[in-house]
Amino acid sequence: METLRVALIGFGTVGKGIYRTIQTHQDKLNQILGKRVEISVILVKNKHRHVHLHKDVPIETNIETITDNDKIDVVFEAIVGIEPAFTYLKQCIEAGKHIITANKEMFAHFGGDLLTLAKHFGVQVGYEATVAGGIPIIQTIKQLLSVNRIHRVEAILNGTTNYILTTMRKEGKLFSEALRYAQTLGYAEADPTNDIEGFDALYKLMILSQLIFNDQPDWKDVVRLGIQDITEHDIKKASCEGKRIRHIATVAIESGHITASVKPIFISEAHPFFSVEGVDNAVRLETNLVGSLTFIGPGAGALPTASAMMEDLCMI
Amino acid sequence: METLRVALIGFGTVGKGIYRTIQTHQDKLNQILGKRVEISVILVKNKHRHVHLHKDVPIETNIETITDNDKIDVVFEAIVGIEPAFTYLKQCIEAGKHIITANKEMFAHFGGDLLTLAKHFGVQVGYEATVAGGIPIIQTIKQLLSVNRIHRVEAILNGTTNYILTTMRKEGKLFSEALRYAQTLGYAEADPTNDIEGFDALYKLMILSQLIFNDQPDWKDVVRLGIQDITEHDIKKASCEGKRIRHIATVAIESGHITASVKPIFISEAHPFFSVEGVDNAVRLETNLVGSLTFIGPGAGALPTASAMMEDLCMI
Repeated sequence: METLRVALIGFGTVGKGIYRTIQTHQDKLNQILGKRVEISVILVKNKHRHVHLHKDVPIETNIETITDNDKIDVVFEAIVGIEPAFTYLKQCIEAGKHIITANKEMFAHFGGDLLTLAKHFGVQVGYEATVAGGIPIIQTIKQLLSVNRIHRVEAILNGTTNYILTTMRKEGKLFSEALRYAQTLGYAEADPTNDIEGFDALYKLMILSQLIFNDQPDWKDVVRLGIQDITEHDIKKASCEGKRIRHIATVAIESGHITASVKPIFISEAHPFFSVEGVDNAVRLETNLVGSLTFIGPGAGALPTASAMMEDLCMI
Repeated sequence: METLRVALIGFGTVGKGIYRTIQTHQDKLNQILGKRVEISVILVKNKHRHVHLHKDVPIETNIETITDNDKIDVVFEAIVGIEPAFTYLKQCIEAGKHIITANKEMFAHFGGDLLTLAKHFGVQVGYEATVAGGIPIIQTIKQLLSVNRIHRVEAILNGTTNYILTTMRKEGKLFSEALRYAQTLGYAEADPTNDIEGFDALYKLMILSQLIFNDQPDWKDVVRLGIQDITEHDIKKASCEGKRIRHIATVAIESGHITASVKPIFISEAHPFFSVEGVDNAVRLETNLVGSLTFIGPGAGALPTASAMMEDLCMI
């Protein structure tokens, strides 16, 4: 049987999830791709931290071990932050490799550039894992856009903030307590700024905007309010009105002008996000032919993310 | 520019929706397919009923006007009932044409046969429109299945019954009144048996079972209870318990054994179908890697159905 050789950039939670999924899904991948999938290189920052792991796969620190290897067809990227991810992926595309990324901050800023470059070099870019974790929203939107126009997106794009808001309401906890609880369970980082102040949701929203409207609003015009100032009182006020607070990202187009925001919103029982609790994400699309569609599912986690990246591999 | 020639079998609500969508979306279809889409033949049962319509398109009654025409690449089928739809589509496949169908009763019974035949003749079968109207559930499931296993599906697959249950609860109407109201609005047929007794939901459920498990349960083992016996009292009882009644189709696999049912179920506020009201459909998939995913959207209507069939055309 033929072998499809892939490289992995990054070996944190998501990288390990991809590694494990490739190892445990060989039969299924064989069946769909007609090939065995082999991880040829894992690229990390600090080789010594991983020296005892997985002796069957070469661990490297130099991107040229990937770009110079003609046998590698696909590169999975699962690191955090814009650089060196963007530079690495540019080099991979220029070396004729398909890329699959889970890096939302990088892709929100430079996804358009990577897609243009990839078109020029005749390779594919998979980014299903950058938005809404295990919900296959990118491919679904592409399918809908083949016939529909989408004019508005409303979404819960960060599982951490939704978990904190759910815990505050259900268990009557203060914001600081709910955050600590989320940190204990691994749902929130030691430095939670990125999630609770809405940066993570903003990145994902910008990726959706680029995909749907082929453009983004000016980032500095986007209202971004986090959930750090939500009080017990706010939660109770919502409950008394039969409502719930959700941290909602919205992007819409009107007469060619794109507007966006990320902010806490009171929603009523009739809203499809009313029962979206815990770490789930949700996306609601307003379209011209099909009407309103809502998608709900796990927004994060190593396995949903790895699954999304494997789905990209099968599409490529 | 090249021309893609298609034929249309059936010119009822859905057929007219396809016709209109093709006419109004030429620019978008050009852009994606790189071709102009032309309807070469519309096949109907009674030519005289349509004689004054659309002089630009030949209206025919003989399937050979499609199967004998080598220039036709794709056939849209939008009629009701198993025959003559099944025989027509077999003939189209044997003539080397891709087929796209919205016919759930036929596809629930003979979808597997058509897919096998299509594989043999090297053509594609699109059936996105057979289940859950505008929700792109077939393609989404195909994508998920490339990596995930799905072990259970729970769904609201009939907009008419959901509309009736919603109206009974919200407006305190009797079943018979709510049904009459649905009929007035065109949400229910003059003979509503197919919808309210759960046949329509069963057909869609069997299509999902075939797609997901590559098999169906024995039809006679499937519990099928309609909503015709739901009383005012049942609705009130549910409300008192903070619950709502939904007409839910379920199919699951356990140790290789498939079980299925279609019946009214009391669900609580925590269930993702709690806020699915009116003519909306909903599908919840339980998967091994991604976890639980829920999709909500319009379950019927000429435009969502036509949109789903156009999406199939773009995939083919």
